[in-house]
Amino acid sequence: MTTTSEELEAIVASAAAAAPIWAGSSAADRAAWLRAAADALDAAADELVPIADRETRLGETRLRGEVGRTSGQLRLFAAVVEEGSYLELTVDDADATATPPRPELRRLLVPVGPVAVFSASNFPFAFSVAGGDTASALAAGSPVIVKAHSGHPELSRRTAAIVAAALEAAGAPAGSLGLVEGREAGNALVQHPVIQAAGFTGSLSGGRALYDLATRRPDPIPFYGELGSVNPVVITAAAAGSRGEELAQGLVGSFTLGVGQFCTKPGVVFVPAGAGFESLVGALVPDTTGGALLTDRITAAFPSGIDALAADPSVEVLARGTVAGDGAQPIVLTTDAAAVAERPEVLLEECFGPVSLLVRYSSPEELHAALRTVPGSLSATLHSDPGDDVAETLALLEARAGRVLFAGWPTGVAVTWSQQHGGPWPATTSLHTSVGASAIRRFLRPVAYQSAPQALLPAVLRDDALATLPHRRNGVLQAPVRTR
Amino acid sequence: MTTTSEELEAIVASAAAAAPIWAGSSAADRAAWLRAAADALDAAADELVPIADRETRLGETRLRGEVGRTSGQLRLFAAVVEEGSYLELTVDDADATATPPRPELRRLLVPVGPVAVFSASNFPFAFSVAGGDTASALAAGSPVIVKAHSGHPELSRRTAAIVAAALEAAGAPAGSLGLVEGREAGNALVQHPVIQAAGFTGSLSGGRALYDLATRRPDPIPFYGELGSVNPVVITAAAAGSRGEELAQGLVGSFTLGVGQFCTKPGVVFVPAGAGFESLVGALVPDTTGGALLTDRITAAFPSGIDALAADPSVEVLARGTVAGDGAQPIVLTTDAAAVAERPEVLLEECFGPVSLLVRYSSPEELHAALRTVPGSLSATLHSDPGDDVAETLALLEARAGRVLFAGWPTGVAVTWSQQHGGPWPATTSLHTSVGASAIRRFLRPVAYQSAPQALLPAVLRDDALATLPHRRNGVLQAPVRTR
Repeated sequence: MTTTSEELEAIVASAAAAAPIWAGSSAADRAAWLRAAADALDAAADELVPIADRETRLGETRLRGEVGRTSGQLRLFAAVVEEGSYLELTVDDADATATPPRPELRRLLVPVGPVAVFSASNFPFAFSVAGGDTASALAAGSPVIVKAHSGHPELSRRTAAIVAAALEAAGAPAGSLGLVEGREAGNALVQHPVIQAAGFTGSLSGGRALYDLATRRPDPIPFYGELGSVNPVVITAAAAGSRGEELAQGLVGSFTLGVGQFCTKPGVVFVPAGAGFESLVGALVPDTTGGALLTDRITAAFPSGIDALAADPSVEVLARGTVAGDGAQPIVLTTDAAAVAERPEVLLEECFGPVSLLVRYSSPEELHAALRTVPGSLSATLHSDPGDDVAETLALLEARAGRVLFAGWPTGVAVTWSQQHGGPWPATTSLHTSVGASAIRRFLRPVAYQSAPQALLPAVLRDDALATLPHRRNGVLQAPVRTR
Repeated sequence: MTTTSEELEAIVASAAAAAPIWAGSSAADRAAWLRAAADALDAAADELVPIADRETRLGETRLRGEVGRTSGQLRLFAAVVEEGSYLELTVDDADATATPPRPELRRLLVPVGPVAVFSASNFPFAFSVAGGDTASALAAGSPVIVKAHSGHPELSRRTAAIVAAALEAAGAPAGSLGLVEGREAGNALVQHPVIQAAGFTGSLSGGRALYDLATRRPDPIPFYGELGSVNPVVITAAAAGSRGEELAQGLVGSFTLGVGQFCTKPGVVFVPAGAGFESLVGALVPDTTGGALLTDRITAAFPSGIDALAADPSVEVLARGTVAGDGAQPIVLTTDAAAVAERPEVLLEECFGPVSLLVRYSSPEELHAALRTVPGSLSATLHSDPGDDVAETLALLEARAGRVLFAGWPTGVAVTWSQQHGGPWPATTSLHTSVGASAIRRFLRPVAYQSAPQALLPAVLRDDALATLPHRRNGVLQAPVRTR
């Protein structure tokens, strides 16, 4: 089922009509609308999870957890809207004694207008119709039109219908959440003059194509894409020695989680040569179980990615797990740091699915030379012991990632105020994040009001509102006393 | 004098070497470096202003004022760095009781790396070598390479030499501020892998060309361009009646200021038909004096822009000022709102120089229909009286501008915490600003640290630093008590 251009025009017109109502909505109303969407999603879990499982094969446990994560995101953004810091309210009083005299200025962020959101295949709830991009755009005060992912069309339709109905029942305008299907409709959407920004989670090739459409418009719009990531991990010799078994278990659990289909999967793991860590991993992998990936096409493509890696003369297969039928079989490959430094374009290619590459290094120099070739990633993980000198390693990891971990594994992304899900290209296209409170900033633009009468100011910039909202006045941050 | 590709490589390598030193510098050091640059600029004013006047013809008074504005910008950013909010420090403590358990996360903004800055012709100090883009990029912790504007090459070289020497004398690394000349070097700069972001002030055509280079890179980078603006003004019938003379004087002063070469010049003024406002303006214009524009080429091009406007059948010449020789002669043209709504691509084309277009409207409907065709602008001005119903007019202006004024005129942009210099395309390419404290945000990217030992955290994220810096902890904004 694909959206025709006539249908697209109607959906876009409806979003355009809804935009000023969202922009003018109070924090209380907007938070209530977001919570109504969250409640409706939770209430529909029994209907939606079986559809999602049939379409994505991700399993009921994972999918129920993902519904909770998705409604939790909507509720976090309701709290972000109520708290008010996201508005970046800033006031400079007039100063007649300055040279030249300064007028009063008051600044806030306002919504950019209707936003296009391109769903991900691997998160049918949390990065799809009512996922993080949608939640943060609605919180910013922008209506959303979602391009459904072809991997879960029925789920997309039902989720959109349920959430749109909940928004309207709570008082939000028609057109708050639209849905289009088909690649052509998606391409038309990102180029439509009404659309003011786009969020995307998916492949580098698909994201780059949409980025190019967004930036080649007569009036370019910001495109926030999350495109791909190898998520490097470094294990020091001391850490491998002191807790090798625990680290091996953690790694194997992380790269096989969700059949290796998380964007934060640890794809490349730098391990000390001769420390025995490979054997520890190799012993665990045979007990892992693979499975079908999100679609038949993705499942069928999995071996070719492995073959491309394995064709490199430096690469050996360390161990394989088991799998029923023709699903994706977990696999760990090995190579060495010198080969990575020489052929990063071959060895550091992202492989979707339950595969990870162990890269042996024999010296800090060898490790650092290889790390310099690692592309921008969503995450980077360092397992070290307190005595290790990791300054250079850490600097190289920080330069390549949006989140740096010192314990645990990168799969699992907490939805909190300080989360960062993004990183240097090609991890993402922007300096922003698609998870966590500051994701809202992507869909806002600043406006300053000069010498405005109180009555003509946006309500949140008037003196009475400022008394209760975080703001900056004449350079000094003002955190209101919280009364609840 | 053009920079060769060998010279460019050396300049870029020097910036790349300086980048980690800037990124790792303390707030105190970075602020001291910025203030040293400001002091050196002020101290060199007697040398620099005559060069600038010879190259730009902007006059000593204006240019001395601009030096003060430029050093003031550097000092504002020193204060922004010391204040610390720009780091967006955010901490979420670990929560073992959450489902799933949450690790500790600490987030901050880090510099993106070396930044390219493209100078403006019309602000040889404030938007050139040591101007706002440079000041905000250095403040963010990024070395800068400036592409000199061909309109003031000698000034660019001297300013760069003076500021770079001052930075080094204050302890900043070599490579903190580089300079390249020539269009080819500029094009190579924005495409160089080391460059991580670009700032630009100039024409729509020049900016679009560089934007296209930046976004078509294999690894696209953010391009922050300020490209053009007609800066609409609306005067209501009541305002024209109650203070028409004052408004006419203000308008004529503003559109002729600096020979009409400010990016915030009021280019299109919507005036009530039959209120006599045109006569008031027409009476003042003959007493204005034009002059040579920034370059001979720009001066020679001025009449062709006027001719293009005047060729429209709706347009009449209201009045002309005087000018010596073949400089640009101030001129006011008139048309009506219906013509603008029909042919905005002709009548709303930005005209650089001392020209403004008065647009008569006979009804709110006619005004609003014309306003809907106004492109994104840096500023929009509304002169109304308290009894006017301006809700719809104001909404249309807000949707099209980054700064909305209710008194005074858009020329003159205060450099303060709450300033916004940007707006919807084509005013700027981004949701950000190139003036005011938040300009720094363009050159920063977020990084989150998960479960990091205190010793491996960036210094500003450690508990002892957080005690003295603005931050958010578990969702609650913490404004430190200021001790100075």
